[in-house]
Order: sequence, then C-alpha cells, then structure tokens
Amino acid sequence: MRFTSDQRLDDGVLERGFTLGEIPGILWTPGSASAPAPLILLGHPPLGLHKMYPRLVARARHAAAEGFAAATIELPWSGDRPRSAAAEQARADLRRALEAGEPVSDQIIDALILPLVDEAVPEWQAALDALLALPEIGGPVGYSGGVISIGVRLAVVEPRIAAAGLFAGSFVPRTILEEARQVTIPLHVLLQWDDEGNDRQTALDLFDAFGSTEKTLHANMGGHTGVPQFEGDAANRFFARHLR
Amino acid sequence: MRFTSDQRLDDGVLERGFTLGEIPGILWTPGSASAPAPLILLGHPPLGLHKMYPRLVARARHAAAEGFAAATIELPWSGDRPRSAAAEQARADLRRALEAGEPVSDQIIDALILPLVDEAVPEWQAALDALLALPEIGGPVGYSGGVISIGVRLAVVEPRIAAAGLFAGSFVPRTILEEARQVTIPLHVLLQWDDEGNDRQTALDLFDAFGSTEKTLHANMGGHTGVPQFEGDAANRFFARHLR
Repeated sequence: MRFTSDQRLDDGVLERGFTLGEIPGILWTPGSASAPAPLILLGHPPLGLHKMYPRLVARARHAAAEGFAAATIELPWSGDRPRSAAAEQARADLRRALEAGEPVSDQIIDALILPLVDEAVPEWQAALDALLALPEIGGPVGYSGGVISIGVRLAVVEPRIAAAGLFAGSFVPRTILEEARQVTIPLHVLLQWDDEGNDRQTALDLFDAFGSTEKTLHANMGGHTGVPQFEGDAANRFFARHLR
Repeated sequence: MRFTSDQRLDDGVLERGFTLGEIPGILWTPGSASAPAPLILLGHPPLGLHKMYPRLVARARHAAAEGFAAATIELPWSGDRPRSAAAEQARADLRRALEAGEPVSDQIIDALILPLVDEAVPEWQAALDALLALPEIGGPVGYSGGVISIGVRLAVVEPRIAAAGLFAGSFVPRTILEEARQVTIPLHVLLQWDDEGNDRQTALDLFDAFGSTEKTLHANMGGHTGVPQFEGDAANRFFARHLR
C-alpha cells in the first residue's frame, strides 16, 4: 500500500489517495482521532471512483463526524483499471434487455454480478489487511453500501467485518440469495421502495434470507438515488452501536 | 375533560389522569416546558389502559425527553368501560380460528376491527379537541402505535394529525387497505418481520398502499413484542422532524 496524495478537508478530515498494487483507493481519517478509529469500508456501484467521489466523500465525512475512518477502492474493470470483455458484454446484454423492456434473465444477472463478486471480494480483503496495519486504524470494521452481492459475500467470508449497512439496489444472483443464509452479523438494509432498477420482491427475499438475528430493513419512497438524508444519520447510529 | 389525578414522575414529567365523559385517559407533559408542547397521541391494543400502563408510560417519558406531550384514552369496550357483545363475539371467533390453526377470515377481521375503528376514532378526535384547548399543549399532533387501522382512519379524517408512527402488528380489513391510499401525511411504519400474530404480506401491501410521499418502513427481527430498543429513538427522531 502506497500513499499517493494527501489533503486536509475543511472539516479537518484527512483524505489520502493510495494504491494497493494496481488498485487505486482513498482513505479518510477523522481530524481529531486520539485512539485508533474503527473503519467503515465504503462500497459503491461500478461507475468508477472519480464519478462516485462526491457521494463517497460525503459519506466519509459523515462517518468521520462520528469518529470513524472510511476507505474505498476502485472496483475491478472500473475507472482507470483494465476493462474485461466479459464484463462489457454482460453490461451490454443488460442494457439491451432493459431497453427492450424484457425481464432481466438469471443468466444476465449472473454474468453481470458473479465475476465482479469473485474478483472484488479478495481485493477488499487485501485492502483490509493493509488498512488495519496502519496505526491510526483499529477494528472493528463495517462495510457499507455499494453492490449488495459484494457486501453479502464479504459478510460471509471476512470475519473481521462486524456489521454491514447494505443497499438493496442492484440485481442479486440466486446463488447470492443462498449465501445470504450464512450471514450472521448485524445488518442494516436500505430499500428504495420504487427503485426503477431494482426488483422489490428480490430485495425482500434477500432480507428474509439473511441468517442474522439483528437485521433491520429501512424502506423509503423515491427512486434509486432518492435515499432520504435522514438515512445517513440512521446508518451512522447503526455503526455506532456495533463498531464501538 | 376533567382531571382526576396528578403526580410528578421522577424525571419531572407530570402525569395526569382525566376523564372525557365516560372515557378515562392519561396526559403526560414534559417537566420543563416553556412553550406549548407538540402532542403525540399514544395508541395501544385493546387490552385496557391498566394493563398497557407500563409500556405507555415508558413511551410517554421517551417522548417527554424530546419535549413532546403525550396522551392516551381507553379504547371502547376495554378496561373498565362497558363491554360489547359483538366485540366479545368477534374476539371469541378470532381465538377459535387461531386455536384451530385456521386462516383468519375477512369476516372475522372485519367484525373485530371495523366497529372498533368506527367507535374509537371520533373519541380520539374528541380527546384532541379537549387536549388542544389546554394552554400547555400546542400543535402539531402526531399519532403513534396501537391498532394500525385506527391510525389509518385518524390519518385520513383528522387534519390536525401531521405525522403518524404506525405499528403493523394487527389484522387489517380490506376497506382499511383502501382507505390507506388517501393517507398523505408523513408515516413511520414499524414491522416485526416474524410477528406470529400478523400477516407480513398484508403489512407490506398496507405500506405500499399509503398515498404519502414520505413513508418509511422499519422491519426488524423478533416477534410481536420484540421491537428493538433503538426503534424508540428512531420514532422520536421521526416526530422531531415533523412536529417541530
């Protein structure tokens, strides 16, 4: 892990760019951290860190205000990372189905999501190794948002993740619905009730499938990007309960 | 409205019993209220105020800590109020269906809930008239919990209610599902995902039916009485957003 930039934001948060091998990432640490800070990994959709930056930095500042560090890495085949022909094909197939008004088949969903999960999850685990080696970062670790299937797999395979705030806002392969039964950590799940790009019943089935004894679903109106402001506070309180 | 008792609780909250005609009720006002306090009407299941008192006073103290007054009245045919042969019959029919493991028919649900709604709602409106005439109570008014069909009807017919926190924890007649489309105030709906006495799909259908543009569903694990502690805070924050 190599830091490539640093700047102090106006609220005192220290923002540092880094690379982990070929993977770019960003780490935010609270301005006034005396003890090692708990860490929240910020998931995001595969649109590239540059495009996602405004929303990511807002979430990181919100987390820092509660004393949490936050970090994210570029997803495979996104941003400036090398493309994958298979991933491009899967996205094109999805676009075609959506434009034709056809149901999105299990094959398309699997091709779109499963390789991404398989490739991304070990990268997030490697990032966790590097981040937890920094003296300013302590445990426990939370995972928040982004492609929900990545969050599910991470919650299953990565014991250092103690709590997850998930956003039911993307397609979920059937195998991930099965994996969800193995998740036992506390979960805070957001659902946009009228999300144009998300199947509500699949989201409810996924929530039902999670094996966790503490799981909360927050459903709100508005489309995919219409999550109300007050849900940011609710997510912070969820992490405060479980990462302190 | 006639006050029949008063006591100061250890956190400074003033608790006063009252009667409104033949209907007993309780009013709680914050210890340190300088301006007239917004009011939250505390709904409850038809088990009698005496039996419900511990939970009601806990909710009232929680509300008072946020500067809200809280009030409740006895439901028709509950507590020391006169019984109704029809209501007793409906409860017996429900018990019989549940004990036989039979599905609860629409007829049983209608007989159980609709007369209660028809009778209770004008009483809560009369209580509102009396409570809002007190100098220590201001608007706006919230309604919280209890029989959800009463909350739905109140939200439709009573314009002084500005926001409602509802608990999807009792049977809902089809006509109430239809009325729900006319509800437009902000809603905060609690659902116990594995509530033994509640049909999850009906609860989701009811949430879907509400006409409100701001409505949030919070689903949690645990049975009917297993609502997590932190949901009390979440409800307070909901009312703080809408009653201030």
